Amino acid sequence: MKNYQEINAPLRTIMTPGPVEVDPRVLRVMSTPILGQFDPAFTKIMNETMDMLRGVFQTENQWAFPIDGTSRSGIESLLSSVIEPGDKVLIPIFGRFGHLLTEIAERNRAEIHTIECEWGRVFNQDEIIEAVKRVKPKVLAVVHGETSTGCMQPLDQVGPACRELDVLCIVDAVATIGGTPVKVDEWQLDAVIGGTQKCLSVPSGMSPITYNERIEKVLNSRKKVERGIATAEDNLESGPTIQSNYFDLSQLQDYWGPRRLNHHTEATSMLYALREGVRIVLEEGLETRFDRHKKHEKALMSGIKAMGLELFNDFEWKLPMVACVKIPEGIDGDSVRNMLLEQFGIEIASSFGPLHGKIWRIGTMGYSCRKENVLFVLSALEAVLIRHGVKLNHAEGLQAALDEYESVK
Amino acid sequence: MKNYQEINAPLRTIMTPGPVEVDPRVLRVMSTPILGQFDPAFTKIMNETMDMLRGVFQTENQWAFPIDGTSRSGIESLLSSVIEPGDKVLIPIFGRFGHLLTEIAERNRAEIHTIECEWGRVFNQDEIIEAVKRVKPKVLAVVHGETSTGCMQPLDQVGPACRELDVLCIVDAVATIGGTPVKVDEWQLDAVIGGTQKCLSVPSGMSPITYNERIEKVLNSRKKVERGIATAEDNLESGPTIQSNYFDLSQLQDYWGPRRLNHHTEATSMLYALREGVRIVLEEGLETRFDRHKKHEKALMSGIKAMGLELFNDFEWKLPMVACVKIPEGIDGDSVRNMLLEQFGIEIASSFGPLHGKIWRIGTMGYSCRKENVLFVLSALEAVLIRHGVKLNHAEGLQAALDEYESVK
Repeated sequence: MKNYQEINAPLRTIMTPGPVEVDPRVLRVMSTPILGQFDPAFTKIMNETMDMLRGVFQTENQWAFPIDGTSRSGIESLLSSVIEPGDKVLIPIFGRFGHLLTEIAERNRAEIHTIECEWGRVFNQDEIIEAVKRVKPKVLAVVHGETSTGCMQPLDQVGPACRELDVLCIVDAVATIGGTPVKVDEWQLDAVIGGTQKCLSVPSGMSPITYNERIEKVLNSRKKVERGIATAEDNLESGPTIQSNYFDLSQLQDYWGPRRLNHHTEATSMLYALREGVRIVLEEGLETRFDRHKKHEKALMSGIKAMGLELFNDFEWKLPMVACVKIPEGIDGDSVRNMLLEQFGIEIASSFGPLHGKIWRIGTMGYSCRKENVLFVLSALEAVLIRHGVKLNHAEGLQAALDEYESVK
Repeated sequence: MKNYQEINAPLRTIMTPGPVEVDPRVLRVMSTPILGQFDPAFTKIMNETMDMLRGVFQTENQWAFPIDGTSRSGIESLLSSVIEPGDKVLIPIFGRFGHLLTEIAERNRAEIHTIECEWGRVFNQDEIIEAVKRVKPKVLAVVHGETSTGCMQPLDQVGPACRELDVLCIVDAVATIGGTPVKVDEWQLDAVIGGTQKCLSVPSGMSPITYNERIEKVLNSRKKVERGIATAEDNLESGPTIQSNYFDLSQLQDYWGPRRLNHHTEATSMLYALREGVRIVLEEGLETRFDRHKKHEKALMSGIKAMGLELFNDFEWKLPMVACVKIPEGIDGDSVRNMLLEQFGIEIASSFGPLHGKIWRIGTMGYSCRKENVLFVLSALEAVLIRHGVKLNHAEGLQAALDEYESVK
């Protein structure tokens, strides 16, 4: 075997819709020597993280904790804990991640109902509410920020409508949490899944979730404590249990709650990272942070348009932290991305499915969302496109972005 | 909300059967700024980690990569990817983690067959082989190192017997990998799951696995690429797919393999940690590392016995990195553990199920497995037990351990 050396990773400017640059304070805290999982000093850190997550989710829910896995682990934990075989699940699809919800619900043997709209658009909330009334599902599962298309689905009326119709509303807010309002309680969302590696600027590997007592009631009806640790009062019967052990929220809440029932061994260093990440969000302040994301979005969009490029998602339903840029006719999108990486150390993203080869996606998320990064990506993109023979308005991009920054003080 | 401060974690001497102290080099590498998941600099790190994992697993298998989750995520990924509803699965149970295998297999709708032996014993390999012949399962799932009882199940004859009988042999080596031989190829094990937070001395949050082409054949027969990223040649039919999306190894191997098909976003910082952890293991050398674990085990056992305490697992099938100490009659085991933590900053573990309140478990794993820790835990245990009124041979424990260390140079 080769004699492998120490990691020697180049320093990148990461302007994708995730993973994005990790806040240096978060990187640093991961070097903290670990604690045992039931050490009182550690369970205190667990509780503090739960408390701060409630703040980020804008909720009074008791349950707000991370799943130990990447973002889709949070989605799967909720869907597989709530869906029983044959349950009707309605999924509005407006991009790749709506398909992902469908995939996961299907594997949990749900009866799937979908409504679809063209990639690049979102639904009128009434369309979703009408579908809920028609299908009468147990669960509506919907994406909030669809990074594949750069679109954001409004949900402030969908949540209350679901509540009234007694439908459980489960929302994938992986891309939006910490970058734009996700008002769990005000919008009456029953469960919400966040991501770490996007607007929270924490490495991938955890997925913070929250859910209310309506979801908890379903979990408790499916609860089964593991043999090997169950005590006399626990139900050991093989009933219609949750099909995953790892994602069984009825057990996970006993681990995160006062019973502290052993399940997995909490991912210590990642929890330190998440705690520091949400602490930074709350220190900055939610509104200030959301405004910051909007400010840099505006500067980036102005720069892109002034350069002479076209935005794919220049609509009121644009996801504030993802700019989707149309790849000019005849240009090889991947060649541009490669040159950005090789010459400038900048990473931007391509897209999926029908949009592959048609758009680039530039993220302005979390710690990556700052002035020097926006200005650097604009200047690099201009230079690389000129090298690729694209006719542009030379030097206009940076001027427009600077104008934008000056206009907001 | 409270104004939370920076993490201020006490420094502990962690002598449990996991999680254990993380190697300082591993702690440090997690502070490395991250890379994007498809950055060539990152996919190189993925490949290097796979290569080094093969070394740790002593295998030529193509597939050796981590699942992004704690140890049981590795177990669930293998069981849920391989087991189809109604498949016969045989599980020999000799402690808590055998029950866990049963739990997970059950939730994958297997037809479960178990054989059980008393906690504190293991099976004669012939007993397992006889059961395999009788049950004719598709899968034998078995724990190698059972930390709940401190016992290790020999498998060198079980593996070849399974191969001959065309049974898939899946082994939970979470506790043993990196601490004692786990000869995947020589023992003809079809799939093996390792843990990070034990003998590898990496934080919890990843689970390295390996499997051979016999397992891969099953995966390929159940493969389905996600809608939203599938291309024309991919199968989109809803067949008998794997019931988890997150743990679907047929997709995960396309992400870790040359196709680099997008699935989750790899947990960057944890991967850096794992890479450094396995690099340290290979630098030390497997045999040297296994010998080190045995040396400190011997010193710890000598000390415990010289003190006048009794070992619960003083057998040839003892798990080399876990000493199970009988709690003296009339002593509150948790009170002793609490005093160790509060006065000495040392953590040792209790146990589960029938052994709860009967034994303490002292781990000597990975970075925690070193002379100063062994001597410190012996001296602290003696002092605390004297404070609890236990009659002991004063000062004998340390002398016996020092004798042991001197005898091996």
